[in-house]
Amino acid sequence: MAPIGDTEYDLVVLGGGSGGLAAAKEAAGLGAKVAVLDYVTPTPIGTKWGLGGTCVNVGCIPKKLMHQAALLGEAIHDSRSYGWELPPPENIKHDWEQLRDAVQNHIKSVNWVTRVELRDRKVEYINGLGKFKDNHTIQTTTKQGEKLLTSKYILIAVGGRPEYPDIPGAIEYGITSDDIFTLKNAPGKTLIIGAGYIGLECAGFLNGLGYDATVMVRSVPLREFDRQMGDLVAASLQEKGVKFLNKCLPKSIEKQADGKLLISWTDPNETFSDTFDTVLFAMGRHASTKELQLENAGIKTEGNRGKINCVNEQTNVPNIFAVGDVLYGRPELTPVAIHAGRLLSRRLFGNSTMFMDYENVATTVFTPLEYGCVGISEEKAIEKYGEDKLEIYHAFYKPTEFFIPQRSIVHCYLKVIALRADDQKILGMHFLGPQAGEKILGMHFLGPQAGEVIQGFASAMKCNFTMKILKNTVGIHPTTAEEFTRVNITKRSGLDPNPQACCS
Amino acid sequence: MAPIGDTEYDLVVLGGGSGGLAAAKEAAGLGAKVAVLDYVTPTPIGTKWGLGGTCVNVGCIPKKLMHQAALLGEAIHDSRSYGWELPPPENIKHDWEQLRDAVQNHIKSVNWVTRVELRDRKVEYINGLGKFKDNHTIQTTTKQGEKLLTSKYILIAVGGRPEYPDIPGAIEYGITSDDIFTLKNAPGKTLIIGAGYIGLECAGFLNGLGYDATVMVRSVPLREFDRQMGDLVAASLQEKGVKFLNKCLPKSIEKQADGKLLISWTDPNETFSDTFDTVLFAMGRHASTKELQLENAGIKTEGNRGKINCVNEQTNVPNIFAVGDVLYGRPELTPVAIHAGRLLSRRLFGNSTMFMDYENVATTVFTPLEYGCVGISEEKAIEKYGEDKLEIYHAFYKPTEFFIPQRSIVHCYLKVIALRADDQKILGMHFLGPQAGEKILGMHFLGPQAGEVIQGFASAMKCNFTMKILKNTVGIHPTTAEEFTRVNITKRSGLDPNPQACCS
Repeated sequence: MAPIGDTEYDLVVLGGGSGGLAAAKEAAGLGAKVAVLDYVTPTPIGTKWGLGGTCVNVGCIPKKLMHQAALLGEAIHDSRSYGWELPPPENIKHDWEQLRDAVQNHIKSVNWVTRVELRDRKVEYINGLGKFKDNHTIQTTTKQGEKLLTSKYILIAVGGRPEYPDIPGAIEYGITSDDIFTLKNAPGKTLIIGAGYIGLECAGFLNGLGYDATVMVRSVPLREFDRQMGDLVAASLQEKGVKFLNKCLPKSIEKQADGKLLISWTDPNETFSDTFDTVLFAMGRHASTKELQLENAGIKTEGNRGKINCVNEQTNVPNIFAVGDVLYGRPELTPVAIHAGRLLSRRLFGNSTMFMDYENVATTVFTPLEYGCVGISEEKAIEKYGEDKLEIYHAFYKPTEFFIPQRSIVHCYLKVIALRADDQKILGMHFLGPQAGEKILGMHFLGPQAGEVIQGFASAMKCNFTMKILKNTVGIHPTTAEEFTRVNITKRSGLDPNPQACCS
Repeated sequence: MAPIGDTEYDLVVLGGGSGGLAAAKEAAGLGAKVAVLDYVTPTPIGTKWGLGGTCVNVGCIPKKLMHQAALLGEAIHDSRSYGWELPPPENIKHDWEQLRDAVQNHIKSVNWVTRVELRDRKVEYINGLGKFKDNHTIQTTTKQGEKLLTSKYILIAVGGRPEYPDIPGAIEYGITSDDIFTLKNAPGKTLIIGAGYIGLECAGFLNGLGYDATVMVRSVPLREFDRQMGDLVAASLQEKGVKFLNKCLPKSIEKQADGKLLISWTDPNETFSDTFDTVLFAMGRHASTKELQLENAGIKTEGNRGKINCVNEQTNVPNIFAVGDVLYGRPELTPVAIHAGRLLSRRLFGNSTMFMDYENVATTVFTPLEYGCVGISEEKAIEKYGEDKLEIYHAFYKPTEFFIPQRSIVHCYLKVIALRADDQKILGMHFLGPQAGEKILGMHFLGPQAGEVIQGFASAMKCNFTMKILKNTVGIHPTTAEEFTRVNITKRSGLDPNPQACCS
């Protein structure tokens, strides 16, 4: 074991994704000597990518761009009703190759900017897979050969990769979100296996771009989210044309002579099969810790997905830390990784005492109708406080822009989960508005631009946000975000949460 | 003067716009006997409209829909870069008549819903102009003849109408925002006189729909707003093709033999002239109080625009109240009027003691690049606290969706105005993030979906929002709203507020 004080680096970061890079840049800015190791193991079909991690290469960025492409398809249809003279919808086709190239070109430019930024900030970049030799030493193999790096602190920020099911043909013929954004040919008729947010987002943009998309659901859609909202998101996708196979499990994938994939699956009673052009697994992700030889440093993992259980990002080995998707029990979100990484470096090198607060982290599912939320689900609130202690405010609403193209509004819905004050009487109808003491525990929004809508409320939730404050926030008219300030109907009242007049 | 207790109504509301209707419905719901009088004096060119007031008929709703139409024009152009196979831009025309009819059809449906809702809520609706006979009596003339209504309380909610300049030809040939949304023929080459938010919004959507748009500015664009932001909004319009005539005043309008309008104007040195198809005045609005015969009830107005100075919406005559755009020194915004009207009725009829809080009301200017803000401007903050007491955080940013169509990002900008804590040292560079005590005084955002972005932060501003809380709010990636959580550069530091990497 290398002695502290005698190391070549102050910080070696394993993984050049959002969390690792944020920590590395912050540490270097505080005067630390820092190296970042980044290496991408190719997918079974050979996809690989550059510096920047999941978010930039195979996550947030390409999916938001493909989501945007799908939204623009809807916008084109809307445009006709707003007076734009366009060809009939059936004559407007989408070119997969053009979109894919545009997305990949953007990603390559981000890879490049990221590389330049590391150089500017004097962070050493090593394109190699790092493995632990001991708790202060990382061994890596680069094009220049084998190398040993000793460091006072080591940060594990290698992120995760998608799971494959253990069925015949999965690895040979299936793809994941690691492959979809670089697909050589248009995906065609696609089966998405898994109904977490990644599966539903992929189904949403594929359907929006004109491909036949089917989602196979094992349990329920968006299992980690509020149940009612998860079901509404699925229903909104279904209304747009996405098909669902509920309570089903895949059994096998075979390649037919015509190149199509024959999938067989079972529901609780029967076995089915159908052919698809593409099968995409979105069954969750495991931490990429297996190749790190954690055991050489004595680092423990938790559960069956290679994750690391940390206290304030510190592993069981005091000089070794972890941020991002490798963390056990933490949200797998880019800004969470960035924030945790940056705060960690400030604690290690900047005399800071500020810790990452994982409470009330907002997130958004970028399905065509977006779902944004912050705080807890209705189920968790009931479990934690009991139904009698809660007041659930909810409303359907009509986005102004939806009227002219006569877009469906049936899934435009929001709810606010509030904790009743101790001394508060149960009111069947909150006619005079909510009581002072109702603390807001969760906010859920299904509709356009949900991410933009929820972000500011996430800040409010960090400052003792109550229903009284929400109801005294004057709306911005006409927006969809203002609908939160208009919410007035509680679930308990049984009143109709559908809207009436729009502007009074 | 009619004695209290002997009146036919509990509340007579003059004006069926957002504020009046909200107050009327709330009062009726609380058991009061309520009548609403609504009457629209036609514009000089004969435009009139139905129940619902400015917002529904000639304000927020039609302008947001025309703004949306213009945004969809930009979306069509974006679509090509995202892979949608569309005709070349020069072959895509816009049909004014179709848009106008779609907008008007939507408005008529809202008029109808509003009417039905009043009936359901047992609010009497009278289509007549109300005039004060005394402080408890309103005189009105309807199709059924003259009528007197006596009421315990009277609410003035008649709103306002656009100003015309006192120049030859203004009334004969000019139009205002009261006319633009029903214009029979496409507006063509348009001169907009006035650079407040209404003028800039009209210029923005007309330009976006393909019309030549010129704005004549007397002083500065968006004079009531933060100066830097106002200038950036104007610059963003100019970049999209809107022309500006700065420091100019109109002199005369003549109709030529070919039907075009010949406008002459002066700047400080010279006189100019040019021909336009349409001239639109957006020079501010006056309260529609002149026809009310306020003097019969002893109600005083303030200033030269017929406005009424109230304390908690109460005029100088104790049983007479006012809400909405007639109020002196209050923001002319629909949700402000609604909120004030509703709270007033709760105080009058529901034993409520809650007053309208006019502080930190958020608003959005729906120019093609939208500008949303809440709290005070940089100038007002400096005036109130002094420059040394402030920290102005700012950033340019790059919306993810803008990359592929290579949209201009030069005006995507935000700033946060924070009050330094008493014990806070001046840091040239806020490298370790802001200090605990920095209270946020104002937030300003120029970019897409600004209304959705700002709304939630307006709630946060009602709960002692500080820079520390903002910086500890985890972002939603990729959104534009998250850029507020990333802001780190102060103006004082002199550092470059341009962004680097997008995801770390």
